[in-house]
Amino acid sequence: MLEEKIYNTLDKLGETTIEGEGVTRISFTKEHKMANKFIGDLMKENGLEVREDNAGNMIGEYFSKNKNAKTLVIGSHEDSVKNGGKYDGPLGIILPIISFGEYLKEEKELPYNVKIISFGDEEGIRFAMPFISSSIIAGTFDYENLNRVGIYNKTLGEALKDFGGDPTRLNEDKIDDISDFLEIHIEQGPILFNENTSLGIVNAIQGFKRYEVNIFGEAGHSGTIPMDMRYDAGVGASEIVYKLNKIIRKKEKIVATVGKMKFLPGSENVIPSKATFSIDIRSLSEELLVSSMEEIEKLIQDVCKKLELTYNLKIKTENKPTLCNENIISKLKDSFIENELHPRIISSGAGHDAQEMSKVTNIGMIFVRCEKGISHNPKESVSLKDINDCVKVLKSFFCKYFK
Amino acid sequence: MLEEKIYNTLDKLGETTIEGEGVTRISFTKEHKMANKFIGDLMKENGLEVREDNAGNMIGEYFSKNKNAKTLVIGSHEDSVKNGGKYDGPLGIILPIISFGEYLKEEKELPYNVKIISFGDEEGIRFAMPFISSSIIAGTFDYENLNRVGIYNKTLGEALKDFGGDPTRLNEDKIDDISDFLEIHIEQGPILFNENTSLGIVNAIQGFKRYEVNIFGEAGHSGTIPMDMRYDAGVGASEIVYKLNKIIRKKEKIVATVGKMKFLPGSENVIPSKATFSIDIRSLSEELLVSSMEEIEKLIQDVCKKLELTYNLKIKTENKPTLCNENIISKLKDSFIENELHPRIISSGAGHDAQEMSKVTNIGMIFVRCEKGISHNPKESVSLKDINDCVKVLKSFFCKYFK
Repeated sequence: MLEEKIYNTLDKLGETTIEGEGVTRISFTKEHKMANKFIGDLMKENGLEVREDNAGNMIGEYFSKNKNAKTLVIGSHEDSVKNGGKYDGPLGIILPIISFGEYLKEEKELPYNVKIISFGDEEGIRFAMPFISSSIIAGTFDYENLNRVGIYNKTLGEALKDFGGDPTRLNEDKIDDISDFLEIHIEQGPILFNENTSLGIVNAIQGFKRYEVNIFGEAGHSGTIPMDMRYDAGVGASEIVYKLNKIIRKKEKIVATVGKMKFLPGSENVIPSKATFSIDIRSLSEELLVSSMEEIEKLIQDVCKKLELTYNLKIKTENKPTLCNENIISKLKDSFIENELHPRIISSGAGHDAQEMSKVTNIGMIFVRCEKGISHNPKESVSLKDINDCVKVLKSFFCKYFK
Repeated sequence: MLEEKIYNTLDKLGETTIEGEGVTRISFTKEHKMANKFIGDLMKENGLEVREDNAGNMIGEYFSKNKNAKTLVIGSHEDSVKNGGKYDGPLGIILPIISFGEYLKEEKELPYNVKIISFGDEEGIRFAMPFISSSIIAGTFDYENLNRVGIYNKTLGEALKDFGGDPTRLNEDKIDDISDFLEIHIEQGPILFNENTSLGIVNAIQGFKRYEVNIFGEAGHSGTIPMDMRYDAGVGASEIVYKLNKIIRKKEKIVATVGKMKFLPGSENVIPSKATFSIDIRSLSEELLVSSMEEIEKLIQDVCKKLELTYNLKIKTENKPTLCNENIISKLKDSFIENELHPRIISSGAGHDAQEMSKVTNIGMIFVRCEKGISHNPKESVSLKDINDCVKVLKSFFCKYFK
């Protein structure tokens, strides 16, 4: 019953989107405003005091009468990628709100404070920068980013102002008294699905490094330059991608992806003078990330030397691996076992708001299986049974949180 | 002296371009009209009767008094690629006009007819289709192409009309009485430059086949999908390009180029669900082209099978290899030797108007060295000495042509 309510509420929230397949809810837009209204109303119905901060975050608060109360913060994001699904983010908002409301009805009073946060911008679609909202809550936000221009041709500062916030007062939105941060999120990967397991306990969030690689050769007519007189940047880049994949496949606990690739000038009858591609490499071990990238740069050097090409390699962004808090993990394990669920420990390949929050507090995460691991896709799907399992675990966690 | 006149005239014609680096002269534009005026005036000065046909070609004609006169047609194209050079095309118009004028002054009368044609559209930039003009002269033009929409958002039919021609009368522009077609063109490759040779005699124009290949995999989050659970279309495409290059390098008398490559959806943090690339393969041997493409398709199959990907391979365009006429080659050889030039036989990797003309007449070509083999580039360069060598050879050829 609770699970059906959660499921239907997520369906309803999913309607707050621009036209098109799936959900497209970009931060600081009309759709974001509508979602905040919807989420705020739901928070109120479930016994929370509601406020919207200067960064467009909706915050539902329960204040305990206990003067020494700890503060448990639960949250996830309400924005989506373009043509995304209904669960990536919102599951970690709607499920806790409704579960908490039910728990409060039973308990009447709790010995700790609870804040449930709906983060306005995590995906980073609008300003090509993730974790804007959680960094404002954590107090780690870099104010220079207010001048960043995003889609719809506005700076972040302007977007916040238009949305109703005061970007000069973001420092007031930092929440200081967080004891622990818990995030519920779909796995966005196939591991739980393949193991036929509904939930997982996250032990760590992978670090990642993201690079842009440019290979430089010499353009030439595809018909007139003999094969042995070519400096083909495309062939060089292809050899690198092929061998990079082989190198990483031989290792464990690390993944690497070339998601972007383009040959230039990009004419069918011109030998590429340039090839540009991205490398995204992720692991729980910073050491492994560093040593693997050294190996990859050596590969790039070797290929370029052999083919008489040149290259550059620029780091674009990175995030260090993040560990979840042992105490939270242990309480989650007990909550799983109490509900006869196997406490499957899993690491997160994707980045999450919890990662940003870890800079100022202890974090924990529950992963919920999504069908076939599909995410960032209109086909994103979560089952009623898995929602129910998560509701039960969260209730046990609420019970154990004070102890 | 003649070579200086030719060099300076080419410089002058090169000013007929839109703004920007190098020469950009797109067919059926104001620049084309200005170039036609310039070329027409030059033809008149050099003893030719001038007409512009319905397809925007400028034709300079000398009619012999000899009733059994053969007709030698000489020509090349006046259009350019975007930001191209001054010589690719125009050299084969200006050099013959001025050389012919000089020859006619000396001889007064010739026993054969001469037509010099400035083709309006060879590069195919505007309508993504090469050889429009030469196919109209040859009578091989497919009238359906009049409905093709090109850049500037007009159909070819509309563009011809705006230019002053009547697209319903293109059939009148076919020239029936061609005995032989000779084209002078820069090599657009590095062979003559590397051999320190000014001119070459083309024995054949390579055939080419052009394909689009699509590799299909499955998108996924770059952090959450283990390496052994991926269906990465980008990795598949890279392995194919790398190995295709190895296969072709081991062969002789064939070249293959992947000039276009793109991964989709093209996000740094998404495993590519699709990779799309071009193959351009060229050889003088149709048999070798066919057998090599069989080998390449086998490679694509094997890689896709191994990585559990799928593919499609579509041919986009092809041109069979074209032989130059033995009689013309022989006359050119004699002309080279007479001028103490080594008759370097060379094949053409690029396509030329002569290729289209070969469908209705005998063809021959002279290649002129261009510096470092650079072409389709503002840096395209030809030396005075090489122009002079070509003028001398052409004069000898004019003398021998009747014999």
